Amino acid sequence: MTHPLFVKHESTLTQALQAQETRGYWSPFPEMPSPKVYGETANADGEQSFKALLNQTFDLDQPRNGLVGQEHSPFGFALGVRYPKADPDLLFAAVARAQQPWQRAGRDTWVGVSLEILQRLNRASFEIAYSVMHTTGQAFMMAFQAGGPHAQDRALEAIACAWDQLRRIPAQAYWEKPQGKNPPLAMEKHFTIVPRGIGLVLGCCTFPTWNSYPGLFADLATGNAVVVKPHPGAILPLAITVRIARDVLREAGFDPNVVTLLATDPDDGVLVQQLATRPDVRLIDFTGSTHNGNWLERNATQAHVYTEKAGVNQIVIDSVEDIKAVARNIAFSLALYSGQMCTAPQNIYVPRDGIRTADGTLSFDEVGQAIAEAVQKLTSDPAKAVELIGALQNDAVVQRIERARSLGTVLLDSQPLVHPAFEHARVHTPLLVKLDAATDQNRFTQEWFGPIAFVIATDSTAQSLALAGSIAAQHGALTLSVYSGDEAVQQAAHEAAIEGGVALSLNLTGGVFVNQSAAFSDFHGTGANPAANATLTDAAFVANRFRVVQSRAHVAPRG
Amino acid sequence: MTHPLFVKHESTLTQALQAQETRGYWSPFPEMPSPKVYGETANADGEQSFKALLNQTFDLDQPRNGLVGQEHSPFGFALGVRYPKADPDLLFAAVARAQQPWQRAGRDTWVGVSLEILQRLNRASFEIAYSVMHTTGQAFMMAFQAGGPHAQDRALEAIACAWDQLRRIPAQAYWEKPQGKNPPLAMEKHFTIVPRGIGLVLGCCTFPTWNSYPGLFADLATGNAVVVKPHPGAILPLAITVRIARDVLREAGFDPNVVTLLATDPDDGVLVQQLATRPDVRLIDFTGSTHNGNWLERNATQAHVYTEKAGVNQIVIDSVEDIKAVARNIAFSLALYSGQMCTAPQNIYVPRDGIRTADGTLSFDEVGQAIAEAVQKLTSDPAKAVELIGALQNDAVVQRIERARSLGTVLLDSQPLVHPAFEHARVHTPLLVKLDAATDQNRFTQEWFGPIAFVIATDSTAQSLALAGSIAAQHGALTLSVYSGDEAVQQAAHEAAIEGGVALSLNLTGGVFVNQSAAFSDFHGTGANPAANATLTDAAFVANRFRVVQSRAHVAPRG
Repeated sequence: MTHPLFVKHESTLTQALQAQETRGYWSPFPEMPSPKVYGETANADGEQSFKALLNQTFDLDQPRNGLVGQEHSPFGFALGVRYPKADPDLLFAAVARAQQPWQRAGRDTWVGVSLEILQRLNRASFEIAYSVMHTTGQAFMMAFQAGGPHAQDRALEAIACAWDQLRRIPAQAYWEKPQGKNPPLAMEKHFTIVPRGIGLVLGCCTFPTWNSYPGLFADLATGNAVVVKPHPGAILPLAITVRIARDVLREAGFDPNVVTLLATDPDDGVLVQQLATRPDVRLIDFTGSTHNGNWLERNATQAHVYTEKAGVNQIVIDSVEDIKAVARNIAFSLALYSGQMCTAPQNIYVPRDGIRTADGTLSFDEVGQAIAEAVQKLTSDPAKAVELIGALQNDAVVQRIERARSLGTVLLDSQPLVHPAFEHARVHTPLLVKLDAATDQNRFTQEWFGPIAFVIATDSTAQSLALAGSIAAQHGALTLSVYSGDEAVQQAAHEAAIEGGVALSLNLTGGVFVNQSAAFSDFHGTGANPAANATLTDAAFVANRFRVVQSRAHVAPRG
Repeated sequence: MTHPLFVKHESTLTQALQAQETRGYWSPFPEMPSPKVYGETANADGEQSFKALLNQTFDLDQPRNGLVGQEHSPFGFALGVRYPKADPDLLFAAVARAQQPWQRAGRDTWVGVSLEILQRLNRASFEIAYSVMHTTGQAFMMAFQAGGPHAQDRALEAIACAWDQLRRIPAQAYWEKPQGKNPPLAMEKHFTIVPRGIGLVLGCCTFPTWNSYPGLFADLATGNAVVVKPHPGAILPLAITVRIARDVLREAGFDPNVVTLLATDPDDGVLVQQLATRPDVRLIDFTGSTHNGNWLERNATQAHVYTEKAGVNQIVIDSVEDIKAVARNIAFSLALYSGQMCTAPQNIYVPRDGIRTADGTLSFDEVGQAIAEAVQKLTSDPAKAVELIGALQNDAVVQRIERARSLGTVLLDSQPLVHPAFEHARVHTPLLVKLDAATDQNRFTQEWFGPIAFVIATDSTAQSLALAGSIAAQHGALTLSVYSGDEAVQQAAHEAAIEGGVALSLNLTGGVFVNQSAAFSDFHGTGANPAANATLTDAAFVANRFRVVQSRAHVAPRG
């Protein structure tokens, strides 16, 4: 019998599958934090729920062995939330006990329960938004959208993708092989989907929900148990997520330890390595540094490892209609969450001889100046700026800005801003530095994570595209943005994107920004360059999370 | 425009997709070497083609640097075939040049060309059969079926599975996001399938085509170039395969170096490790020892690695209707190709207190005796026996029989036989040894590859099933066969199969043998125990062999 939660959410699932097939626009989770959609008191209630969690022990009835938690809001205060500390062996033993009935429950139950969790998460979007804001430093609007509905979209995408593979395995089959004049050989075969075991989800400190949900829900929807190990700096959004998942599991009659939280204090590197190489960890989803991601890929060989790591996102400017529209669009991409998105551009290549526009030629310096001015305009009014740039997640980003200043001529200096509502917030405007492709390659072929971008003089657009393709291929990249009115250049951009294995956006001047990737339509990451070994979300992301065990026996031929 | 070879073979592809969905019986490649199907002179022509290859340099116009080849037929003569020796750097440079136009050709071309190669391979089934026979030691009928049509079935299955994933990626999409009262944001998106690069296929010496074709064709159908590295003892069947693939590629206008042969002399372990860790090798398909497979999984982390390794296949006898029918079926499985199939059973568990049958109770010794007699019957007439047991692939198998004799009481000793047609053939009948679960676990928890099986006394069927499940989980297994008329035992067998991640066959007494796995219906291997990290063939086997790179640009809203 189909699980009632599957029946309840089946139409959403059907629509998600259809959206994935056509890859047009679709989302079931409204992205605007509108009272009309989420309820008149939803925002205030969510903020209150968030505040009620501060300076308390987070309520989670899972095996514990002390308390941990040292989160500090980038907006300038300690969260004071204390989480159960887990002894890994005890926690994994509890997970092992929980997982068997879950593994046997079958695909419609896994998917139904996953979809119900998602609906509850959607209802908690404001509480999650405040917790994302005060762990990542995202401004509220972004924390709501990226941390709430957009993360939920990506989760649903993963569930639908998993279902699309699960549903292809017939539960049983009749097999009849002719034997010439003799009666045929006839067998009935049964196929059981067997989850891999325990999945470990390793969260990051900038997008704790958006980057963790796909792996978490891909695991869950294919019947695995999941241990969620948040970044020590951004535990709360995932703790709320785990709490909600456990509530739904419990209500559905399962041991809630199917989904557990493994919160840690900072400097948990050795612990993570021990966790990741446990024989019972069969799936790992990781977002974070290249160093740690590579370590997992090379050492956690007992598991399937899905990583998203660092990259160098690039913009190539060849020619434009209207430099102001281009500069506005680029400036927004640089400023949004202070360049702390994995998709934010860093290297902007402009031919040293300048570019063509509808109003004549612009020199290299004029292009750089236009971008600098556009960034300045977006960030000059602190009250408006902070709603866009948010706060810097940690001090390492501040220090990185300091180091980046000396790389070349500063086109636009980074300035600290005082947040009108949070006086101790860590707010700094973007830094723009001028570099030269002829001399500075060792400077711009690495990621400078944060509000740091380079306007780089090249010999030509051909050189710009060659750099874009080869840097993406060698150092990784999630996005490439190209501005050109020339069809041959657009074709060359396409070739560079394929060489670099990177998603290309052409001539963005309006309301779409290169940083943004839309679930059900845009693949996030390609798996074809060092920035990620997987994409959100395709069959490769889900198909290894379960196995099929068959049994067969003779039956009478059906004749 | 759809490639003409795709159009030519589209109906086969459609049928294959349908077969995979329902998992009933289907095969487009007739398994009987019948003159009516393959032509009156096909057998003689194939044998002549094979003989014409002996003691010659194999004609393959790819980069060469000397000659290699030391194959010796298990039927007692040196093949004397010399193959081009490849300097890996030069060969991979040629492959790199060949791969770009192939990668850009697109999915219908990859699949169309792959299907055409397959059709040509089918026509060469007799030539391939003789080459399989005289490298592996398989008797002719098996060499024809497993090396020809059944291998071709598995190849087609991989191609269809790849196509099933490829066709899901839309070439383009229209994306329109509402903006309230403002005009919607509208974009057109293009999705390009980008193959991973170069695939390395590492063949084995017992099933050079059957075990290599799935990886080879999964790579090719997803646009990758393929370097085929046969086992030094079984080069010829894959050399013929590569020659045919190159012919088709050339005729279709491609550089034939899209598929190349990397033949080696014995003791090529270091070379294989160097090949497998090349940065340009992105996919590896391996069949062979657990030691080598584990090495690849742990060290070739730059590639996706698909392995099939050793395992301990098991039979549990709980109760039977007719011991003779059971013993006949088991004996055939033990004798077929002298137990040198990865699916051949090794451990046969029987309760020490005996079993129930329709004719009363049989003691443990009577069950062992019945199996021994059935094997003896199958192998007593050398002329008939050799057509079933074939020859032993190499001397290590003969030495293993010798070592296994001393493990316990011999129920049926292995005998050398003189092959009526090949007097120097390496032919030995199966060895059956009695062991005890209480004392001999360290003896039977490893694979004894070859015509070696154990009848093992257990305390009960419960212990038999517990052993079967845990040994499969810890040491790997591809097959589990259970005999019981008791529904509770059958259910427990199902649980043991799931614990062990192993395919279960129940009560085989007729014309289906546990060793056999049928393409489009049976998953071969599960990926859920150490015997294999992948299955033939599911989405997980193909979905990581390509990536998608997208580009997007604004368009006018379509209103």
